[in-house]
Order: sequence, then C-alpha cells, then structure tokens
Amino acid sequence: MTPDEFRQAGYAVVDWIADYWATLDQRPVTSQDPPGAVAAGLPAGPPVHGEPVEAVLADLDTLVAPRLTHWQHPGFFGYFPANTSGPSVLGDLVSAGLGVQGMLWATGPACTELETVLLDWLAELLDLPTRFRSTGAGGGVIQDSASSATLVATLIAVHRAAGGRWRQVGVDRRYRVYASTEAHSSVEKAARIAGLGAEGVRLIEVDPVTRAMSPAALRAAIEADRAAGTVPALVVATVGTTSTTAVDPLPLIGPICAEHGVFLHVDAAYAGAAAVCPELRFGHAGLEYADSYCFDPHKWLLTGFDCDAFWVADAGELVEALTVLPEYLRNAATESGAVIDYRDWQVPLGRRFRALKLWFVLRWYGVEGLREHIRRGVALAARFADRVRADERFELVGPHPYALVCFRLRGPDGPNEQLLAAVNAAGPVYLTHTRVGGRHTLRLAVGSPQTRQSHVDEAWELISRAAAALPSGG
Amino acid sequence: MTPDEFRQAGYAVVDWIADYWATLDQRPVTSQDPPGAVAAGLPAGPPVHGEPVEAVLADLDTLVAPRLTHWQHPGFFGYFPANTSGPSVLGDLVSAGLGVQGMLWATGPACTELETVLLDWLAELLDLPTRFRSTGAGGGVIQDSASSATLVATLIAVHRAAGGRWRQVGVDRRYRVYASTEAHSSVEKAARIAGLGAEGVRLIEVDPVTRAMSPAALRAAIEADRAAGTVPALVVATVGTTSTTAVDPLPLIGPICAEHGVFLHVDAAYAGAAAVCPELRFGHAGLEYADSYCFDPHKWLLTGFDCDAFWVADAGELVEALTVLPEYLRNAATESGAVIDYRDWQVPLGRRFRALKLWFVLRWYGVEGLREHIRRGVALAARFADRVRADERFELVGPHPYALVCFRLRGPDGPNEQLLAAVNAAGPVYLTHTRVGGRHTLRLAVGSPQTRQSHVDEAWELISRAAAALPSGG
Repeated sequence: MTPDEFRQAGYAVVDWIADYWATLDQRPVTSQDPPGAVAAGLPAGPPVHGEPVEAVLADLDTLVAPRLTHWQHPGFFGYFPANTSGPSVLGDLVSAGLGVQGMLWATGPACTELETVLLDWLAELLDLPTRFRSTGAGGGVIQDSASSATLVATLIAVHRAAGGRWRQVGVDRRYRVYASTEAHSSVEKAARIAGLGAEGVRLIEVDPVTRAMSPAALRAAIEADRAAGTVPALVVATVGTTSTTAVDPLPLIGPICAEHGVFLHVDAAYAGAAAVCPELRFGHAGLEYADSYCFDPHKWLLTGFDCDAFWVADAGELVEALTVLPEYLRNAATESGAVIDYRDWQVPLGRRFRALKLWFVLRWYGVEGLREHIRRGVALAARFADRVRADERFELVGPHPYALVCFRLRGPDGPNEQLLAAVNAAGPVYLTHTRVGGRHTLRLAVGSPQTRQSHVDEAWELISRAAAALPSGG
Repeated sequence: MTPDEFRQAGYAVVDWIADYWATLDQRPVTSQDPPGAVAAGLPAGPPVHGEPVEAVLADLDTLVAPRLTHWQHPGFFGYFPANTSGPSVLGDLVSAGLGVQGMLWATGPACTELETVLLDWLAELLDLPTRFRSTGAGGGVIQDSASSATLVATLIAVHRAAGGRWRQVGVDRRYRVYASTEAHSSVEKAARIAGLGAEGVRLIEVDPVTRAMSPAALRAAIEADRAAGTVPALVVATVGTTSTTAVDPLPLIGPICAEHGVFLHVDAAYAGAAAVCPELRFGHAGLEYADSYCFDPHKWLLTGFDCDAFWVADAGELVEALTVLPEYLRNAATESGAVIDYRDWQVPLGRRFRALKLWFVLRWYGVEGLREHIRRGVALAARFADRVRADERFELVGPHPYALVCFRLRGPDGPNEQLLAAVNAAGPVYLTHTRVGGRHTLRLAVGSPQTRQSHVDEAWELISRAAAALPSGG
C-alpha cells in the first residue's frame, strides 16, 4: 500500500469510525445472536489475491459490528468502563503508523523518554507520593493492564523476600500473598503464574458494610504464616474494588507491611483516575507506604486499552528482578547506565509506543477537561443512586464513592437475576452483576464521555418498568 | 471530541502518517542525539486547558520524529524486522475506534470469533499440523509477543508435569526447561517469571556450524536431570534463532520429548512467516510433535506489533492451567461451554481487537501478495550474501535460509565493531550485531516492504567503503 493509497483508505476508515460513533446510540448495546454467527459468515480461508479496503469495511458493517458488545455506547454501564476518546484513537494511530519498537531506549529514544515524562506528569496530576517520580529512585511505566502490573509487583516482591536468591533458584520456599476477599482475580492469577499456587494467596476478610480489608485480620494472617514458617511476600491493597469500589485502608495496612517487611502493591485500576480531582483523592491516603501502585487510564481516563500506569518506588529492584541481557540487545546507551530500557520493566520484550495516546489525551482535554469528565461521571452515578434510594422496592448496596452504583431489589436473588436479563434484553442499556455478601447485586458504572443525564434516566426508567413487569411484581 | 471533530483531526493524522512514510528514506535511520533530548523539550506537566491536535502534530515533527529509530525505514536492517503496513495500521485504527474489550466471548462475540477463524486461516496458510486447528482439540490465539507465548507454554508445561497439582500448590519441586544456547532470552525470562529460576533452564549445546540444537545433548540432559530427581517439563525448540536463524531439528527433538513426556514448544517468531511459501516450509518438518507453536506476523508478515500467533494442540489443558472465574465475569455464554473466552489463553485479563489488523492484512495482500513479500526479502538477502561472498575481506557466518545474513570481516573483533559503528553513523542504513561462536558478527535482516534492491546495494556500498576506510584498511 503506497502512502497515497493509505491516505485515501485512511480517510475512509476515519469516516467509518466517525459514523460508527455518531450512530452508536441507535444500536442495541449487545448482540443477541448465538455463538457462531460471525464464524459462519466468514470464508474458509484468506483470499488468494488482494481485495480493496472497501470490501473489508462492508464486512465490518454487515458481519462484525452487529455482533459486538459496544463498549463505547452511552448506554454501556457494565463491568468497569473501558472508554476511549477521539484523541486517544489518534495517538494510537500515530503509534501504529510509526511502527516503533520501544524495547530499549536505543530502539526508540523518544518512545522511552516521552513515556517516562508522561508518567511523571500523571504522578503529579494524581498527586502521588514523590517516591514514585523518575527524578528520584522510582519511576513509572505503561503496562498493558492492571493484571500485568500485579504480576510484576508479585515478581519484585518474591525477589525481595528471597533476599536475591529467587532469580537463580526460583520458588524454593512457601511465599504468601495477601489481598482482600474482594480483590481482583488477577491477584490469584499472578500468584499462580509466579509459581506460588492458589494456596499461596491468603484472602483476608472484609468489613461487612464497607467491604474494605480488615487490618486486624491481615496482621493475624501474616503473623500466623510467619509462625508456620512460610514467607509473607506481598500485600495487594485495592482502592476501588471490582465488585463495589471498596477502598482498603492504606493508613492501617501500610504500617503492618512496613513492620513485617512485606512489599505493598496498591491496585487502583479503576478508581485511581478519580484522583485527578483533589476532592476525590481520599482513597490515596497512606499511599506513601506503597512500594508500587497502578491505575488504568484505559478505564476511566479516556485513553483506549491497553494503558495501565504502573509506578515503583525502587526502579533498581524492579530491573534486578526482571532483566536478562543477551548479546544481540547490548548497546552503548544501555551500558552507559544513563537510560531506561523498558523491556526490563515488563513481562514481554517488545513494546508499542503507547505513550502517544496518553499524550494526545492529556493535551486535548487538559487538566480541567479531565476533571470535568470525572466529576460528570460521579454526578450522574449520584443521580442514579438517588432514584434507587427513593424507590422502596430497591436498596443500595454499600456506598458509591466513585461512579459505580450497586443496587438490588429487596428480597431474594431470583427476581434480581430476572430483572438484569430483562433490562439487558431491551437493547438501549447494558448492566452486569456481582455478589455482595452472597447476594446477587446489579452494578451500574458510568464512564463514557457520551453518557448524558438522559441515558442514566432512561436506564432507571427501564429498570423500574422491568421490575414492575416481573412475575413477582418487583 | 465529537465525531465531526474526530473526522477532521483524523484526516490530518492520516496525512501526517502518509507524509512520514513518503519521506522516510530522506531521514537517518537512527537519532544521534544523546539521552535526555526529548525529555528536556517537554513541559513540566500537562496543560491546564486543552490544546488542538495540530499542536501535538507540530511537536511530533520537531521533538519526537527526529529522536526515533525508524523501524519502517527501507534502510532498517537491524534486529529482526518489525514491519507494519498500511492495511495493518487501518485495521488497528478500526480496533481503536471500536474500543471493544475482548476478554470474554460475551464482551465482544465478533472479536473472539474473528480471531479464532483467522488463526485457523493462518494455520492453513502455513500448512501447520491439523492438531492446531480450532475444529479439533486445539486452537490459536493472538498473544502480544513470542515472549508471552513462551511464558504461557512454560505454564502449561509445568501444569502438565505436576499432574494437576501446580494450580494449587505452585512450584514444589525442581522443574527443568531445555532450549539451545542460541535460543531467545525470553526462555530464561519465562522460566524466572514462572518461579523455576535461571538454574531451571538447561542450555543445550549446538552444532558448531549450523548452530542448531544437538538432539544427543538434549537427550543426555533430560536423562541426567531425571536421574538426579528433577522433573523435565519443557523443551523450547527454535525455528530461526535470533542470532543466525538456525533451525533446531524437530524430527529428532520431537521423539525425545514424546519418549520422556516433555512438553514441546516451537518458537518460530521470525521464521514462521516464511512458511506462507511452500518452498520455505523446511523448518516445520517434525512440527506434528509440538504441543504448541508460535510465530510473529508482526515481524515479517506486514502486521504491526503486537501480533504473535500462538497455537496449542490441547486447548483444554491451556484453559485448565490459566483460568480463574470470579463472579463478576460469570455469564450464560461461558457457562454453556459453547464459546472461547480468550482471557483464559493469556496472562492479562483484558484484550484488544487485534484480529482486525490481521484481517485487513490478509485481505489486502491475499495469499499471493504475502508470498511475494517473503520471496522478495529472501532474494534481496541472497543478493547481499553474494556481495559478501565475492569480497575476500569478508566471510559469511553460517547459512542464510531466510532473509537474515550474518557476516564479518575476516580476523579479529575490533575492526568489526568499528565497521558497525561507522556504517550506522552514516545515516541511510542501520545494522545490529551478535556473537557467533564468540566472534563479533554483523547482521543484516531484510524485511520492510519499502526495501528495494537499491537499498540493499547501498548498504553493501557503505559497508565496503567503511571497511576500506578503517585504520586497519579492512
């Protein structure tokens, strides 16, 4: 494809996306087709001779788009948001066009330096402790996801707990990882990948109302494990849990970690973005105890997946845990010690120029634009919670400090399950569920920059009507 | 950013990329600026108020582009290629615009099904054994890189070797991983991440001429380890090693793995793409013994990073090793057992719609277009090798079965190091080095669709002249 062919086809694809966004709210949020509908529509193999881009765009319209879950839809309230934005898409487009491989500083100096500086910008924007800045011993890096950040934190923690032996001998004793029963499943997955096994994870009980980790139970577990001859290596505290956005109490957890020499990773995958607003930084109190921290600009900060921002207080320890240097990667810049080679900060070797999408987002919106986005989400969630609170058929489940509201019909689980199915089948909105204290609970998470008051009100109307239409009458 | 603002800014970014590509060969391949030049040009923090996209594009021109290694440059001959193409960039653009999160079938049915079908297309295109097709017990998935594929293979191998205990108890005995001394550094990195330690990796000696793994040495190592009470878990065989594109002999390695019940992963990260041409499938002989296999369309098949194609013969075993199912991800489709949830095939939870870029590439080029691209690279490399062979100052190092040529000035290392530095400082071309049998060796890898005969001839002229200008006279 020549540059001029790219120019023409590129305009067509840009138009296709603009049209998709402009018509999103006319589509149902999810596909109702059964498994296999897309596969059945595809030929058995690739074409022998090339086809024009227009042919692919036509198939996108007829075959692909109708069988998607539309995550950018203004009526998408499921899971946590994974919103992108125009500037993010354009930054990613530049990254794809440059096709730079940023594994070493030497293989893309601007790719590395822009990332380092932007992670310092973000640390400033969220008012993170200075220990995470690259100007000291710390620094930030973009991981693909909070799962990978948790894995990297697990590896550093075991490296530290092993007193330097782990690189060479691997897991040669029983290490223990601690997280609350509400923590993300990636904590167990990371422990399994790291060779600690599911039994290497101790799930600590939570407060029955706030769903936040019990510091007393954490201390007891660490002390019991130590007494039993196992090695406490890592505590993962969560700011904004996946089920209910509970906030683990860092000011109480941090000193326990410090006392026992346990690595503290703070996972603020969803809620960290809220800290761009000074009034929403409460979850970060005590963050100065953390050895590492992450949040996902790809969730609630208008930057497309994959963009997890991960910081460590001691970059030297991280590199020591992960570095391998074969001959074919040796170069003068690396040997000078004056540069960062981000390959040593992550699991894979290769890496895309992901800082570009973050750069485009930060510059298009500016600090005030990002704050406005977060505040609008919080206000819309509060508006929805008011509706729930005012309807005696329903109950709110726990507090809603950010832009996720958990709620349910009072009474048994069955009607709640039926309600969720009915609401999602209608088309204009999509919600998901969780279990809180064993009870089936609906979740409504606001995040899209396209979501207006009218969409949230429509969601409530649908829910209210669907509840009334249940066999039990709601 | 509204859809119409996106349309206008999108055209500008498409133009920027088209202009970048059209002017690439007027730029030096690498930056000569010292570390810190980009960071010094950036402000201390993000702007308070938003800025237009044009302001970012202007900074791209002045600050970023001059400080890149231009991986898409026709004179880029370093490492292995990591080439993209117009259709790949456009497929990735659609993916960014859709912003779909493909962790579950339910969160993006088309995202999952297109990927499954395309990996079957690729398996057909490379003539891989039928055991890797999704129509049987196997199947393919896109990983970010071959490093991650190796890690996933390591985890399945340990899971199998542990007889089902590993998920629960982790690494509770000494497992061993085998790869040749020429294997990629990601084998050691994966073993370290998996908790096996560097000493869990046995590097098997290679034939001094072909640089391919010695089957006799592999057998001896496995038998010795078994006798010593450790557990042989995984052999990683390489088709096209990073240093010299050596091909490990699968027809001899496979039976050893089968006899000892050791998982066999085949890493064809670079060379696998060559198998789109029937005459270049020699490296895949014996692949029917493999439990898993990967190659990188993002290296030599015109698809932008990140796109590693990874297949397993037993998808059930893979999912068993990696799955974790929290309540908030439960859904009817998953419970039906009728769908693939790719989150269970990889380390992270979230995933982008990466099949789109592959789809755009396969359809734009067609099978014949891809074969032409590979054959042109092989022919250009052969032409360069002829030049080296005809010049008595130089020697070829090993065979060049694909599009990488290893060569050196006869004699000591010093002049070779000086030659590489002088050639790269000139601007129009970029080469990297390795060590083969302890000797400093230059590598020239052809891969860019923009690389013509004239670029390869220019590279040779520069090398020849620089050699003549060395203090030693070449």
